[in-house]
Amino acid sequence: MRIEDKPTVGIGLIGSGFMGRCHANAFGAVAGIFDLPADPVKSILADATDEIAAAAASALGFSRATSDWQAMVQDDSVDIVAIAAPNVLHEPMALAAIAAGKTVYCEKPLSTTASSALKMTKAAEAADVVTSVGFNFLRNPMIGLARQMISSDEIGEITGFRGRHAENYMASPDAPHSFRTDPRGGGALCDIGSHILSLARHLLGPVAEVNGHSRTIFPDRPVAARSAERRAVVVDDMTHALLRFASGVSGSIEANWAATGRTMDLSFEVTGTKGAIAFTQERMNELLLYSGSGHKAGYQRIEAGPAHPPYGRFCPAPGHQLGFNDLKVIEVAQLVEAHAAHGSCMPDFREAFEVQKTAEAIQSSAQSREWVTVCTAPG
Amino acid sequence: MRIEDKPTVGIGLIGSGFMGRCHANAFGAVAGIFDLPADPVKSILADATDEIAAAAASALGFSRATSDWQAMVQDDSVDIVAIAAPNVLHEPMALAAIAAGKTVYCEKPLSTTASSALKMTKAAEAADVVTSVGFNFLRNPMIGLARQMISSDEIGEITGFRGRHAENYMASPDAPHSFRTDPRGGGALCDIGSHILSLARHLLGPVAEVNGHSRTIFPDRPVAARSAERRAVVVDDMTHALLRFASGVSGSIEANWAATGRTMDLSFEVTGTKGAIAFTQERMNELLLYSGSGHKAGYQRIEAGPAHPPYGRFCPAPGHQLGFNDLKVIEVAQLVEAHAAHGSCMPDFREAFEVQKTAEAIQSSAQSREWVTVCTAPG
Amino acid sequence: MRIEDKPTVGIGLIGSGFMGRCHANAFGAVAGIFDLPADPVKSILADATDEIAAAAASALGFSRATSDWQAMVQDDSVDIVAIAAPNVLHEPMALAAIAAGKTVYCEKPLSTTASSALKMTKAAEAADVVTSVGFNFLRNPMIGLARQMISSDEIGEITGFRGRHAENYMASPDAPHSFRTDPRGGGALCDIGSHILSLARHLLGPVAEVNGHSRTIFPDRPVAARSAERRAVVVDDMTHALLRFASGVSGSIEANWAATGRTMDLSFEVTGTKGAIAFTQERMNELLLYSGSGHKAGYQRIEAGPAHPPYGRFCPAPGHQLGFNDLKVIEVAQLVEAHAAHGSCMPDFREAFEVQKTAEAIQSSAQSREWVTVCTAPG
Amino acid sequence: MRIEDKPTVGIGLIGSGFMGRCHANAFGAVAGIFDLPADPVKSILADATDEIAAAAASALGFSRATSDWQAMVQDDSVDIVAIAAPNVLHEPMALAAIAAGKTVYCEKPLSTTASSALKMTKAAEAADVVTSVGFNFLRNPMIGLARQMISSDEIGEITGFRGRHAENYMASPDAPHSFRTDPRGGGALCDIGSHILSLARHLLGPVAEVNGHSRTIFPDRPVAARSAERRAVVVDDMTHALLRFASGVSGSIEANWAATGRTMDLSFEVTGTKGAIAFTQERMNELLLYSGSGHKAGYQRIEAGPAHPPYGRFCPAPGHQLGFNDLKVIEVAQLVEAHAAHGSCMPDFREAFEVQKTAEAIQSSAQSREWVTVCTAPG
Repeated sequence: MRIEDKPTVGIGLIGSGFMGRCHANAFGAVAGIFDLPADPVKSILADATDEIAAAAASALGFSRATSDWQAMVQDDSVDIVAIAAPNVLHEPMALAAIAAGKTVYCEKPLSTTASSALKMTKAAEAADVVTSVGFNFLRNPMIGLARQMISSDEIGEITGFRGRHAENYMASPDAPHSFRTDPRGGGALCDIGSHILSLARHLLGPVAEVNGHSRTIFPDRPVAARSAERRAVVVDDMTHALLRFASGVSGSIEANWAATGRTMDLSFEVTGTKGAIAFTQERMNELLLYSGSGHKAGYQRIEAGPAHPPYGRFCPAPGHQLGFNDLKVIEVAQLVEAHAAHGSCMPDFREAFEVQKTAEAIQSSAQSREWVTVCTAPG
Repeated sequence: MRIEDKPTVGIGLIGSGFMGRCHANAFGAVAGIFDLPADPVKSILADATDEIAAAAASALGFSRATSDWQAMVQDDSVDIVAIAAPNVLHEPMALAAIAAGKTVYCEKPLSTTASSALKMTKAAEAADVVTSVGFNFLRNPMIGLARQMISSDEIGEITGFRGRHAENYMASPDAPHSFRTDPRGGGALCDIGSHILSLARHLLGPVAEVNGHSRTIFPDRPVAARSAERRAVVVDDMTHALLRFASGVSGSIEANWAATGRTMDLSFEVTGTKGAIAFTQERMNELLLYSGSGHKAGYQRIEAGPAHPPYGRFCPAPGHQLGFNDLKVIEVAQLVEAHAAHGSCMPDFREAFEVQKTAEAIQSSAQSREWVTVCTAPG
Repeated sequence: MRIEDKPTVGIGLIGSGFMGRCHANAFGAVAGIFDLPADPVKSILADATDEIAAAAASALGFSRATSDWQAMVQDDSVDIVAIAAPNVLHEPMALAAIAAGKTVYCEKPLSTTASSALKMTKAAEAADVVTSVGFNFLRNPMIGLARQMISSDEIGEITGFRGRHAENYMASPDAPHSFRTDPRGGGALCDIGSHILSLARHLLGPVAEVNGHSRTIFPDRPVAARSAERRAVVVDDMTHALLRFASGVSGSIEANWAATGRTMDLSFEVTGTKGAIAFTQERMNELLLYSGSGHKAGYQRIEAGPAHPPYGRFCPAPGHQLGFNDLKVIEVAQLVEAHAAHGSCMPDFREAFEVQKTAEAIQSSAQSREWVTVCTAPG
Repeated sequence: MRIEDKPTVGIGLIGSGFMGRCHANAFGAVAGIFDLPADPVKSILADATDEIAAAAASALGFSRATSDWQAMVQDDSVDIVAIAAPNVLHEPMALAAIAAGKTVYCEKPLSTTASSALKMTKAAEAADVVTSVGFNFLRNPMIGLARQMISSDEIGEITGFRGRHAENYMASPDAPHSFRTDPRGGGALCDIGSHILSLARHLLGPVAEVNGHSRTIFPDRPVAARSAERRAVVVDDMTHALLRFASGVSGSIEANWAATGRTMDLSFEVTGTKGAIAFTQERMNELLLYSGSGHKAGYQRIEAGPAHPPYGRFCPAPGHQLGFNDLKVIEVAQLVEAHAAHGSCMPDFREAFEVQKTAEAIQSSAQSREWVTVCTAPG
C-alpha cells in the first residue's frame, strides 16, 4: 500500500538540556497525536560543541548536528528555529533567526530583561515572522476551560485573584548558584513567577499596577554543587506582590523557589459574583469550579477528558490524564499550525515581553518600596 | 450517695446573639469535659431589653436576666464577665467590669480601634484582672501542634508564610449593610483578617512592617436585607497585605469576605528549611506536615486525636473530630483555670491590642500606599 | 426578671465510660442548642460501685449516684433510662426499664445476639415505650442530605453500593483482649460493621441476602495491656461481605478494626443512573455529590451549613463544622422530642434488631461459606 | 557532524484504534526518552482493509500498510508484532507471530477465555519467544514504589487488601452493545476487573480462592448507538468479589463499569502491621503512605518525581507529572529491552493467563454462588 506523503516542516533546535529534550520529543510525537498541515522533521540540532550536539542528535533523532547555530538558523532545511539555550543567548539567536525569516519558538523567559525582550518583539513584528514562547502551562485543557468560564460569565463579574508559583528546588541553603541566581534575569520572580504572571494575564488581562516585596532567604549559597566556597546571593528567593489589574480586579501573587513541600504549586483561585475557580498544576488534570446554592453549593472537581479539547487527541476516554510532556506537544501543534497558516501563536514574543515588563515592575517596586504602574490604558 | 460539691464560679454574660449563645453553651458544657478547679454557674444574662434577656436566660439556662449590664458587672454572683455585645460597647463594658475587679472575657475584636483596645488593656493591667479575648480558632489542638512544631525546630528555620481568611458571606452585591460595614471597626480586614493576623502572631511572633492593598468590590449595598435603597460602602471587601515579621520572615495575608466558594478558609502555609506546615479551618481536624526526603517525601495528613491535647478530653479515640463549638469549650476551660489561678490566659487584652494595631497599620498602609512600621524592636 | 420555667425530663444514666460521659454531656448541652418541649435534668447516675458512681456524678453533673441500677430505673425522678453499660447487661437493664414504663435509650449494639435484641424489641413494643439506639452517625446532617438525595431521585435509580467501616484500634497484634474480642457480641463486624450496616439500611433499605468472609488476622492477643500472656482470638479482625438489597441493588461492605491508617473510615459510595454520592466520617462535614455532564461533570464537595438541618442549631454560618459530640446532642434532642410526643425515634429497638440480624447472617455465611438470606419480602 | 547510527528493531502493528494509536505513538516516542539498545522503527501497520491501514500508517508514521496480517507477521522487517486488534483475533494472530519466531506484544485481555490464553502461553513458551501483555497501569512508577514498599516490609506484614476498578462508561442504560458486551470475553469483570486483578497479583501474589457476585444492572441495551432496538445484556455491569490470597491475606475487589462519577478509579488500599498504602489511578502521580506514630501519624502524599524511576527519564524535576500515554512508553521501553536481551518482560503471556484464570474463577463463583479455588499451592 502506498503511504501518503505529507508536507514537512524542518526543525532546527538549539540546546539539548531539559527543555531541549522536551522540544525534540514534542516535535517527534506531535504528528501521531494531531492531524497537522505538515509533519515536523527533526533536521538540525545545535549545541555548545560538536560532540555534545552529535550525541544529542543521535539520542533525540535529528538528522544533523552542529556547534554553529548561526549557520543552522540560515539552513534551508530549517523552517522553525527552536531556542532552548541559556537565557542570555535568546536575544542574539532569535534576532538571527528572525533575520533569516524563520518562525521562532523560544523558551521562556524570552530574554534576561524586558528591554531586550522588546527589541526581539519589534524585530519579529517588523520582519512579520511567527513567534511563540514556551509558557506551556497555558496549553493545559483545564486552563483553557478556566479561561472560557471566566470570559463566558460562568462565574459572574470577577472579584478577586490569588496566584502562586511555589516550588522547592532552592529550599535548601546548600542549593548552589547557577544561571538561576545570575542577576541577569535570575531570581524566583523571573524564573517561575513569570508562569503565574503569564497565567494571570491569560485569565484576567493586563496588570495595571504592582507592589512587590522580595526576600533573599539565604544570604549566600555554594558556588557549585558540594563546594565549600560560598558566594553572596543577590536575587530573590521569594517575592510576594499585590496586583491591580486594568479591569479593576485586585489580588496577589507569590513566587517562591524555597517553598519546602511544593513541587509545582502553580496555582490560582479566581472568585466571581456567581462562582469561583481554583487550580493547581500539582493536580493538572483537575479544575475546581464552585457553583450552586442552597443545600447543593460547593466546589466541583472536574476531571480532564475529551470534553476539554484537545484532550481527546491524546485519549478518547476521561480519567486517563495528560502529563507535563503532553502540554509541550500541544504547544508544538499550535506552533506548527501557526507556522503553516502564517498566523498568530499566543503567547507570542509581545505577550512574553508584557509578562517580563510586569515582572520587572514588581522588582522595581520591591526596591523602591512603592507602587509601580505597569500600564495606564485598560489593556 | 453524696455527690461532692465543687467550688463554683459565677458567669455574667452580656449579649445573646450567635456569640452569646456560643459562650453560654460553652460555660454549660465545660465542666463535663474538663476537670476544672471550679464549675461555672450561669448567673446573670444581660441583653438590650428585659424581655430579650429573660427569653435568652430561659433558653440558655441562666438563673437571672437583666437589661442593666452596669448593675450586673458589679453583682456579687458574677466572677467572670463575658462580653458578646456589639463591638462599640466592648470598651465601656470592659472598663466597668475591670473597675469591679472582675475577670473579663471579651469577644473579638477587643474594640473598634487600637487606641480603645490599648486603653482597655492598660486599665486591665493596672487593675491586675485576668482577661481573655475570643480568638477561639487558636484553641484548636491542631494549631497547638503547628505551633509546637514551629517552636521545636521540627521544620527548621522558618522561611516563609502565606495566610488567609476568606469567606463568602458578603460575596453578593446584595448582602446588606450591618455592623460589619460600619466604618468604626468594620470591613473584611477587621472582621476576619484579625483571625489570620492573630494566628500569624501566634505561630511566628510580632509583625514588624506591613504593606496593604484594600478594595471595596461593591460600591454600594442595600441598607437592610431586601431593601431597594442602597448606601455607599466605605470599608474593604478584600485586603491583601505583604508582611515582614520581626524575625525577618516575609509573607502575605489576605482577608476577604467576598470570596465566593469559601466558607471558612482561615488557612496558612508555613515553610521552613526542613519541612512545612499547612492548615485550613475548613478541615479543622487535620494538619498537613511536609517531611521526608528521597522517595518518601510528602505532605502527611495528621488527623486530630488524643495525641493532640486537649482532644482526648472530648473523645478517647482519634478520627471522631471536634467541632467549632468545642473550640469555645477549650477557650472557656482555659479561662476558668486562669481565673482560679489568677494567671495569664492568652490571647489576653494586650495580645488582642497588638493584633488590632497590626490591622490598623495595614489599613493605614492601604491608604498611604506605603509600607508602615508596626513595631521596631524584635517583638 | 423572672426566668420562665420549662417542663423537665429526668435522666437516669447507667455507665460512665466513654459513651456514658458522651450521653451525660449531650443531655447537659441539648437545651442550649435545641428548643425542646422539656429540659433534660441529670437525675441519677448508676455505675458498678457507689464510689465510681459518685465520682462520675460529680464530674458529669448528676444530682444523685447509685450502684443499684434496678432501683434507679424505677425511681420517679427518672423518665428516660440511658444505657451505656457493657453489652452483656443491655438486655436485663432494658427489660427492667421497659417494665417500669420508661423511655429507653440504649447504646449500640442493642444486645450481644439478635435473638436477645428481638426479645428486647418485643418487650418494648408490647409495653409501648419509646426506644432509641445510639447509632449516632446517622444523625449527621450530611447523612440526612444523602438520604434525601437518594429518596428524591436526585441521583436517579440506584445502581450500586460500596460501604466500609475501617479503623485501626486493633491493628497491632499487641492490642489486648477486651469486651470487644468476647465471642458474645464481639468482633469487628459486630463492633463497627454494625455502623455501616445501619447506614446501608438507612440509605437503601433492607438487605435481602449476604455472603461474608471473615479473617482473624492475629491468632492470639495479650490477655491484657502489656501482658506477656496471650490468648487465642476467636472473633474476626476483618470481614468483607457481598450484599444484595431487597431493592435489587448489589454491593459490598467491609468491617475492619485492623485497618492501619484509618481512624474513622465509615464511608460509602452510592451510585445511581443520574449521579452518585460519596462520604467518609473522617470528613464528616462534607458530602460529595457527583452531577453534571459534558465539560462540567464532577464530584461537588458540599460543606455542612445551615442549609442542612439541624446544623443551624449549632451555628448560623457554614464552614464552622460540627464535631462527633454534636451528633450525640442531635440524637438526644430527637429522643427528648420523641419522649414528649410518645412518638417514634429512629433507629429504635426494632431497627437495631434488624441491623444485628443482618450482621449475624454475615457471620453465619462466613462460617458456612454460602449465601444467607436475611429477609425474603421486599423490605 | 556524523550522527551515530543505532541498531533498530522493526515493529509490525495490527490495529489502529485507541490502543493501536497508543502503541504507535509509544514506539515513536520511546527512543527520545529512554536510552535503548535498539531504536524501534515503525515498519508495517496492518488493519481490516488496505484503505484503513494506509490512512493509519500515514497518520502514525509507518512505512508500509497492509490488510494481510498473516503476511505481515512473517515479514523480515518485523521483529516485534504488536497486537491491538479485537480480542477474538488475539489468539490466531499471536500464534502466527509465535510460529514466525517474533516477539509478541499483545493488548489485554490476552484472549477471550483462559483456555485460549493458556494455549497461547504454551505456544510462546515452547517457541521461546519474548511476550508482553499491555497491563500498562503496572508501569506507573508509583505502582513500582508501592510494590517495593510491600516487598521490603516497609508496611510490615500485610493484613488486608481492598481493590477496585470503577468507571462510568456504561453507566447509562442507553450505552449500546459493543464487543464489550459480547459474552466471549466481555463484561465489566473481564474488561476492567482484569486491571485490578493484575494489580492485586503484582502487589500481593497469587489469589487462592474467590467468591464473586455479579449483577447486570441494565437488562437490555441499544443494539447500537442511538438505536431504538434493544437487546438483552448477558454480561455483568458490576461484580464484587471476596478474595483469599495464597499468602493468607483476605480482601475484596469490585469491577464496575456503571460507576457514575468514576472515570478511572483503579484503586487499592493495602494495610500492614506497620503502615498502609493507598492509590487511585485518578491521581496516578501520587501514592499515599501511612506511617508514623503518636502525634505525627498520618497518610503522606508522595508525589511522583525522579526518585521514582523511570520518572526521571521523562522529566528531571518532581511535580511535573506523567500522563497515561507515558505509561505505554515505559511498557514499550521494557519490551524493547527484553527483546534485545531475549529476556523476560513481565507481565508476560503466562501472567496474563493467570489473571484471566482468576477472573474466570470469579465468574464461575458468581454463577455457582460458591467459593471457587484458583490455585492450591502457595503461589
